[in-house]
Amino acid sequence: MKRYDGREADQLRSVKITRGFTQNPEGSVLIEVGMTRVLCTASVEEKVPSFQKGSGLGWVTAEYSMLPRATQTRTPREASRGKLTGRTMEIQRLIGRALRSVVDFKKLGERTIWIDCDVLQADGGTRTASITGAYVALVDAIQYLIQKGSLKESPLQDTLAAVSVGKVEGVPILDLAYPEDSRAEVDMNVVMTGAGKFVEIQGTAEEVPFDRSELDQFLALAEKGIRELMSEQKAALKLV
Amino acid sequence: MKRYDGREADQLRSVKITRGFTQNPEGSVLIEVGMTRVLCTASVEEKVPSFQKGSGLGWVTAEYSMLPRATQTRTPREASRGKLTGRTMEIQRLIGRALRSVVDFKKLGERTIWIDCDVLQADGGTRTASITGAYVALVDAIQYLIQKGSLKESPLQDTLAAVSVGKVEGVPILDLAYPEDSRAEVDMNVVMTGAGKFVEIQGTAEEVPFDRSELDQFLALAEKGIRELMSEQKAALKLV
Amino acid sequence: MKRYDGREADQLRSVKITRGFTQNPEGSVLIEVGMTRVLCTASVEEKVPSFQKGSGLGWVTAEYSMLPRATQTRTPREASRGKLTGRTMEIQRLIGRALRSVVDFKKLGERTIWIDCDVLQADGGTRTASITGAYVALVDAIQYLIQKGSLKESPLQDTLAAVSVGKVEGVPILDLAYPEDSRAEVDMNVVMTGAGKFVEIQGTAEEVPFDRSELDQFLALAEKGIRELMSEQKAALKLV
Amino acid sequence: MKRYDGREADQLRSVKITRGFTQNPEGSVLIEVGMTRVLCTASVEEKVPSFQKGSGLGWVTAEYSMLPRATQTRTPREASRGKLTGRTMEIQRLIGRALRSVVDFKKLGERTIWIDCDVLQADGGTRTASITGAYVALVDAIQYLIQKGSLKESPLQDTLAAVSVGKVEGVPILDLAYPEDSRAEVDMNVVMTGAGKFVEIQGTAEEVPFDRSELDQFLALAEKGIRELMSEQKAALKLV
Amino acid sequence: MKRYDGREADQLRSVKITRGFTQNPEGSVLIEVGMTRVLCTASVEEKVPSFQKGSGLGWVTAEYSMLPRATQTRTPREASRGKLTGRTMEIQRLIGRALRSVVDFKKLGERTIWIDCDVLQADGGTRTASITGAYVALVDAIQYLIQKGSLKESPLQDTLAAVSVGKVEGVPILDLAYPEDSRAEVDMNVVMTGAGKFVEIQGTAEEVPFDRSELDQFLALAEKGIRELMSEQKAALKLV
Amino acid sequence: MKRYDGREADQLRSVKITRGFTQNPEGSVLIEVGMTRVLCTASVEEKVPSFQKGSGLGWVTAEYSMLPRATQTRTPREASRGKLTGRTMEIQRLIGRALRSVVDFKKLGERTIWIDCDVLQADGGTRTASITGAYVALVDAIQYLIQKGSLKESPLQDTLAAVSVGKVEGVPILDLAYPEDSRAEVDMNVVMTGAGKFVEIQGTAEEVPFDRSELDQFLALAEKGIRELMSEQKAALKLV
Repeated sequence: MKRYDGREADQLRSVKITRGFTQNPEGSVLIEVGMTRVLCTASVEEKVPSFQKGSGLGWVTAEYSMLPRATQTRTPREASRGKLTGRTMEIQRLIGRALRSVVDFKKLGERTIWIDCDVLQADGGTRTASITGAYVALVDAIQYLIQKGSLKESPLQDTLAAVSVGKVEGVPILDLAYPEDSRAEVDMNVVMTGAGKFVEIQGTAEEVPFDRSELDQFLALAEKGIRELMSEQKAALKLV
Repeated sequence: MKRYDGREADQLRSVKITRGFTQNPEGSVLIEVGMTRVLCTASVEEKVPSFQKGSGLGWVTAEYSMLPRATQTRTPREASRGKLTGRTMEIQRLIGRALRSVVDFKKLGERTIWIDCDVLQADGGTRTASITGAYVALVDAIQYLIQKGSLKESPLQDTLAAVSVGKVEGVPILDLAYPEDSRAEVDMNVVMTGAGKFVEIQGTAEEVPFDRSELDQFLALAEKGIRELMSEQKAALKLV
Repeated sequence: MKRYDGREADQLRSVKITRGFTQNPEGSVLIEVGMTRVLCTASVEEKVPSFQKGSGLGWVTAEYSMLPRATQTRTPREASRGKLTGRTMEIQRLIGRALRSVVDFKKLGERTIWIDCDVLQADGGTRTASITGAYVALVDAIQYLIQKGSLKESPLQDTLAAVSVGKVEGVPILDLAYPEDSRAEVDMNVVMTGAGKFVEIQGTAEEVPFDRSELDQFLALAEKGIRELMSEQKAALKLV
Repeated sequence: MKRYDGREADQLRSVKITRGFTQNPEGSVLIEVGMTRVLCTASVEEKVPSFQKGSGLGWVTAEYSMLPRATQTRTPREASRGKLTGRTMEIQRLIGRALRSVVDFKKLGERTIWIDCDVLQADGGTRTASITGAYVALVDAIQYLIQKGSLKESPLQDTLAAVSVGKVEGVPILDLAYPEDSRAEVDMNVVMTGAGKFVEIQGTAEEVPFDRSELDQFLALAEKGIRELMSEQKAALKLV
Repeated sequence: MKRYDGREADQLRSVKITRGFTQNPEGSVLIEVGMTRVLCTASVEEKVPSFQKGSGLGWVTAEYSMLPRATQTRTPREASRGKLTGRTMEIQRLIGRALRSVVDFKKLGERTIWIDCDVLQADGGTRTASITGAYVALVDAIQYLIQKGSLKESPLQDTLAAVSVGKVEGVPILDLAYPEDSRAEVDMNVVMTGAGKFVEIQGTAEEVPFDRSELDQFLALAEKGIRELMSEQKAALKLV
Repeated sequence: MKRYDGREADQLRSVKITRGFTQNPEGSVLIEVGMTRVLCTASVEEKVPSFQKGSGLGWVTAEYSMLPRATQTRTPREASRGKLTGRTMEIQRLIGRALRSVVDFKKLGERTIWIDCDVLQADGGTRTASITGAYVALVDAIQYLIQKGSLKESPLQDTLAAVSVGKVEGVPILDLAYPEDSRAEVDMNVVMTGAGKFVEIQGTAEEVPFDRSELDQFLALAEKGIRELMSEQKAALKLV
């Protein structure tokens, strides 16, 4: 089987990670995965939400949004509608949870890192691209805090990246673009650490339920993709 | 290891499914899983959302809410706050998606079935209890449509139930109650069909990422629990 | 005249009051008046609204909601609409005002008791059933505070119950069920204390204005009904 | 007993009704009751709400608001807060219900009359002044429709006015001004027709419950006050 | 050219300024400019917004609203819609900015003056009438603070008034009424101080862009109108 | 006087206009003015708002937003707050009005062009950069409609650009960056057509009112800046 864009079943789209895309944030990363482009920023705020006050512990939270014309037809702006869609809420909760899983809040101290993921162009996989890009922005924000002397050591416990996998016309494939995503039988998002462990698995059978052996295939594809994404992260961070 | 309530690691809490709990809805089910109690109703509406109009296809959608004092301390009412929390949105999207996966919309015809899951008492596992109970309410609503002559055959393609699994103090366990859920290292919700296939897997490592062998253990526990829940559903529906 | 359900003009529907319906609240009462079923809970919060802070005085407030399918056809959820209807606001203000009328805020001390009335099934008279049931939940919450040692004596000054009366086809009747309520010429809600005094009278001529002698008949019916409801409250509280 | 402003217990404040206060509305009435001043307008719209469409029946609805500095200290604007208070909802529902009780919707035909009551200055009794003033505005709007040829005969079935009564320091009094209202033991609003019948009775014991004989005194005071208000309405309408 | 109401191109409508229109506010002014009537009140609050706290500086802020039937056909109430329109926001920001430009916040001290402009009748020029009237209400509120001893000297640095100018059928005209405003080619609002300097110029070419020489004509008209409005303000304040 | 960044008083910041910045919109332009960067897109929708339906006329409307970390410290997201700020409303109304002034709605036909201006990085002058960039995106969208055959001729009547001018430390300057804008004595935004006429002038004296001769200086600076911006637009559109 050839995919609509010529990729192999287990092939990622081309990935490009640009640090310092904008100047104001402590971390600012443009991640491009094929046509999908997300601006991920990390902003340090020297206070924590009320449930964390006085605990000595920090916090990481995320917000996600799509520009109205990131999509093929214009999507009404959530700010104009006056409320977030369920999809947005679900995605920003996922991003926040994923990033919190690799941060030691005691080491971070009583401060919040705000992650903002704004999709400039959407072509499938925006939530996983957001996590992969936001991790790099988070590293830059942590680095900023260390250089400024606010932190002595990094509160990061591991590296983190995410990818989507799914089944289209009965074939398990890696990194679904929008034309694939919109007709996938199964859609799964996987977040993993550098140690090769799962932080989050969200698999949904849109049309046809899947069994254990298919699940194994999905997870193998995801692992392969995430290892490659982590190489891109390292290269961008000049760690290789 | 003994669990706080004396259960084995692979043991469900006691389950009770009461049909016809209220008189107005086409399907009305009270499901009790241990101390968790959810009223699940299915309401037939003879029209569909605009995206489905004229297609000949039906729709199933779900809403979820907790009574303010379902919880140990009072939770502010979403209607008074004027908006749904992200948690509620995430849960009601999950319930709707899960139930849609076993319904043939062509056979249902241009009508909507509204699923309402209202938690009267919360002790962990409210979203999975909602799915398990809502499936039974859905069966009753379908039965009502058949008896009334609106449907010739059932649009249901398979049975459906859901359960939570997780890891507490390093041990994989089935059907977490709130005291377990609140300190779980991993929390996973699994939705399966009667054919033993996955409709939804949502696993989150709150604290400690998990590996493939642990995932296998979680899924085995989930399968066992879901088979037992399906027996309860069948008994309630007098199919056994 | 025989009523549609065989009752006499001055006859209440059957009443059932179940205490401890759910475990978490300090007071939890299911009240059933005919087909109408309302879950009334009383929750203690150890603080007061800002207008009462530092005064040494307590507060009682109420919220009211109907489950979407409590009604014969599904009513959209207020939490999803993002705002309360005028009807809900009006009812919850009435419930709060009524219960506050029998509480000595000085004796209660600087704490709030939240009353939540959630209608599981609606067949007319939900606001008066809410008041009658909530009074019992309030007694239980007060009892809880006394047993816990937070209160030395009860701040309750009197007992309280409520009933609806109205005129249908020219005949004054007690305790209107929905089929009567929806075509009543006059609809009146009456809240009284155990001492036989009025706390609230809300009478509305939907179609035909009423005169003084009719008002006298309504109030006589209401008094009779409320005395009977108070017997049910006492029996439920094991005071008789 | 002398009242704080020298009135007798059964004495209304001075009443002034100015028709045509503004030019745009079909009916525009400034009603002044002592220091309370309410601008009541009636606006004709040639359509009805969806629940009335195609029925051949008209509708009357009301909205109520206070200017921020109608009160002694500034009250935040509801438009800025983004939602109506419960008090506003309750009052505008009362005004609408009261006016609808004297209109024959069949004769009105499929059109809506919007009543807007905007309080320019508040000194107690704003809701009853609104009803009394709005009735006159409604008459003017009906007259406009008749002169324009849209209506052949008036759909008004009776006249309508409203007043407050209450108990202060144990004494029943008529037409409470704010300094009385704010410390009243009982507060009651009464709406009556020209035929001397009740359209609405809303009595609340803020502090001390009241008995039947007190109720009789309140209603006698209300009747006296409403008869006098109706004379003022007639004089303003040049019907006397 | 004769204007529709017989005015000359450079002629204001008749202006009437009534102080003390309502009793509660520290300043309360009804300004009438032709058929346009705006109630402008100034309310003193002894605290400042959070951004000004502890600075020793005061604040002036404004809110603007139209009664629903100020307009020729009824405009839905913003409080009922649950949000302000962009037009309202724009206008109230303009009014606040204009008034702040003549107040010395150090002399005012840490208190806020709230300006409320409520349009009772709209016939064009409501925002400029609001500014002209609000200035007089502000003077009265300042006077109140001086008489009460809260202020030693006035924080007002200059006088202030505003007017609209525009181009209709190619002719520059002063003080547009609604029938002119609705078909103007250019619409410009000008706010000036007593010293003859500009505080705000907002010019919009609705249809036909304008050039420098036209701008000069507009500004000359505005200056003339504002000088006349300032005479009216002075007369109302009995300063002449 | 030297400006903080070395510019002359009448010097624009460097300008860069990139067409086709994203692929989905019919027009997509990244405009960079110094550090200010705005993504301006133009989206064609084949319907018009209700007030324009059946008229044969088209419509142009604009929305504006800043990414949360476009600013030096993070600004809360309007979509999360649930409403637009007054500043946003004011700006998007200005952008829409400006662009509409150069479009012939009859030639556009019954379709809407949505302009979205999303600020990726803010350093002063975002609203004028938005207009200048949006004009180019609009040209591209029109071109798309012509090439597709939907339009026979361009409905554009003139070119359009905008710039800010102001007074800092008593000196009139062109194109204020944020450090200048935040302490400007006068702030003015000017929108002009290619014919050298004004579409919009919005001048505000934040601190010190200005006189006619200063106004003349501001407008001369604006004209110079806008002529230069129009050269950049032409170069980007390859019209030179």
